[in-house]
Amino acid sequence: MSNPFSFRLTATDGAARAGEIATLHGMVRMPAFMPVGTQAAIKGVHHDEVRASGADIILANTYHLMLRPGAERVAALGGLHEFMHWPYPILTDSGGYQVMSLAPLRKVAEAGVTFRSHLDGAMVELTPERAIDVQILLGSDIAMQLDECVKLPAEKHDIERAMQLSLRWAERCKRAFERAPAGRALFGIVQGGDDPRLREESVRALVGIGFHGYAIGGLAVGEAPEVMRKVVGETAPALPADEPRYLMGVGTPADLLAAVGRGIDMFDCVLPTRNGRHGLAFTRFGPINVKNAHHADDPRPLDAESRCPAARDFSRAYLHHLFKAGESLGGTLLSIVNLFYYQDLMTGARAAIAAGRFADYVAQTEEQWAAKRDVAMS
Amino acid sequence: MSNPFSFRLTATDGAARAGEIATLHGMVRMPAFMPVGTQAAIKGVHHDEVRASGADIILANTYHLMLRPGAERVAALGGLHEFMHWPYPILTDSGGYQVMSLAPLRKVAEAGVTFRSHLDGAMVELTPERAIDVQILLGSDIAMQLDECVKLPAEKHDIERAMQLSLRWAERCKRAFERAPAGRALFGIVQGGDDPRLREESVRALVGIGFHGYAIGGLAVGEAPEVMRKVVGETAPALPADEPRYLMGVGTPADLLAAVGRGIDMFDCVLPTRNGRHGLAFTRFGPINVKNAHHADDPRPLDAESRCPAARDFSRAYLHHLFKAGESLGGTLLSIVNLFYYQDLMTGARAAIAAGRFADYVAQTEEQWAAKRDVAMS
Repeated sequence: MSNPFSFRLTATDGAARAGEIATLHGMVRMPAFMPVGTQAAIKGVHHDEVRASGADIILANTYHLMLRPGAERVAALGGLHEFMHWPYPILTDSGGYQVMSLAPLRKVAEAGVTFRSHLDGAMVELTPERAIDVQILLGSDIAMQLDECVKLPAEKHDIERAMQLSLRWAERCKRAFERAPAGRALFGIVQGGDDPRLREESVRALVGIGFHGYAIGGLAVGEAPEVMRKVVGETAPALPADEPRYLMGVGTPADLLAAVGRGIDMFDCVLPTRNGRHGLAFTRFGPINVKNAHHADDPRPLDAESRCPAARDFSRAYLHHLFKAGESLGGTLLSIVNLFYYQDLMTGARAAIAAGRFADYVAQTEEQWAAKRDVAMS
Repeated sequence: MSNPFSFRLTATDGAARAGEIATLHGMVRMPAFMPVGTQAAIKGVHHDEVRASGADIILANTYHLMLRPGAERVAALGGLHEFMHWPYPILTDSGGYQVMSLAPLRKVAEAGVTFRSHLDGAMVELTPERAIDVQILLGSDIAMQLDECVKLPAEKHDIERAMQLSLRWAERCKRAFERAPAGRALFGIVQGGDDPRLREESVRALVGIGFHGYAIGGLAVGEAPEVMRKVVGETAPALPADEPRYLMGVGTPADLLAAVGRGIDMFDCVLPTRNGRHGLAFTRFGPINVKNAHHADDPRPLDAESRCPAARDFSRAYLHHLFKAGESLGGTLLSIVNLFYYQDLMTGARAAIAAGRFADYVAQTEEQWAAKRDVAMS
């Protein structure tokens, strides 16, 4: 293949890493934030804006797309890149997490998980092999193994059972992925909840199987932020230095910086778009809820010096009005603002790591967030 | 003032006219279609897309904006252009039509109309003077007189009473508008329902008062399409040739061409965005409802040769999927497609009028719409 999958580390600063992934659909600069396109669309935001924000790669959901419009249909239409007209890299999750969180009924067995579709009630089987087949049909640049994800807090024996099952599924996914066209990548997923020994065992076994990259799963599922940071801090360093590391489903801007500082390279999260739709803007000055009444007469933009036109051009008063009036343009504009901000945060992290001043970058960024409480919210 | 309001006729072809309006915020090429920004936002569409579609001017609703966020607030924030960050021409309606159609309770008297706000139930008074004040506060380039609009069919004496009241309000609006800064325009509104004699009387009296332009109101309110065309065909020629003519709230692409052929210069309508949100695309091949099941596997774009990127880039299958999946991006993309199509229709009309072949243009356009029934919908 012309441009097979590869990862290159370009700089480190303490545990923090900068690097890049090459895929068949282009480069991904890391640390990378992946906007979430659950149903082959980033909610409320035109692809052009997603790209303009600086996103190198997006995530799409296997669970949703296999149910609607269907993986075979997407494949017949030329694959997901062609179908959604996003010619850049795409990572697909395996569907495991959504089966646990969305399907109204499910049964986990050794063979796989059987669940009732939340759309039409049909019973659907998702095995490790089917999860890989679906992702091959979708044509994703980075596929994820099927795993079982346990909500925290949970009993240790439940966490351990799910972790062991996920390891056996990892092996089957690896085998199934041998059918994938060249240039595509498969990531394993570390499970083990908040138990360091289980996490360690999961890492060791996954590395033994061998993947193009490793994700930390089973976090941001109900645990306290400090638990998440502790698990990331213990798990990331145990992963191979020469492979990308992806923290699934995380998180706030502060979570991202904390995880980059602990050696994570990739993130996905619905927060920028979901919070945007609910009126919350992430900015250099911290979060701003434009629905608050005191914005109704505020002619200031969210951030006059932002790279994002929506953050510069529209007043807080206008954004406030759009939300009060129920105009969806409000959610769209704040989603765009947030997608730009998340990318800017990663751009800043990459530059800081390259310059060997990542700790300063985090300190300055957090200081500016805190300072805003006196200024922007006044 | 540097650039006061003026109208210039550049070509005629039969009754059809091409021309342009100069305003303080730029030129408007005519025939012109004005996208509707009811609450200072074109529903679901970013301003950049509205402008890219070719819109020279948009319409905003006085009724909605006076209730929320309030005309005085908008004025304090720099006026509507600044508030919504649309630096191009804006026409505002007077609020009369919305009072009739939206307010849950209203009382029309000589002084004005008193109504209950559909937002908070407060009683609000809208007099001709207040309607003008509000539009001056908003800073609109073209203001409309307050009128009383009667739904058709209606008794002749009701139509006549409303028409006569609208004329007296027209005089009061004209006087109130003397306070407006230079460079702004005020249009009168012809009423008279489907009665040629009443329409004629309304025209004569309005021209006697004297306005910068004349609208035909009280149509697209329940009458048959041929009634609308007949009234337009009888009324437009009676209006001054050297002033712009605006048909309010109309209509379908076919309605627009029919009205241009009868001497109308300006239109506004929610159809492109409303129908777009409901899955209906207006195209050169006629309307296409992407929600229809047969589009689910159709890799073709809506129109591969469209000027609109959304019509070229996205397959019917993808658009179908977005609607099935409830992704608002679907409505946004079709709204953009439709706004581009309406502008293209006007661009084509202007060129055809200038070339003296408007009748051919209409015939060819309608032929292509009809031909589609065999091709695009197959």
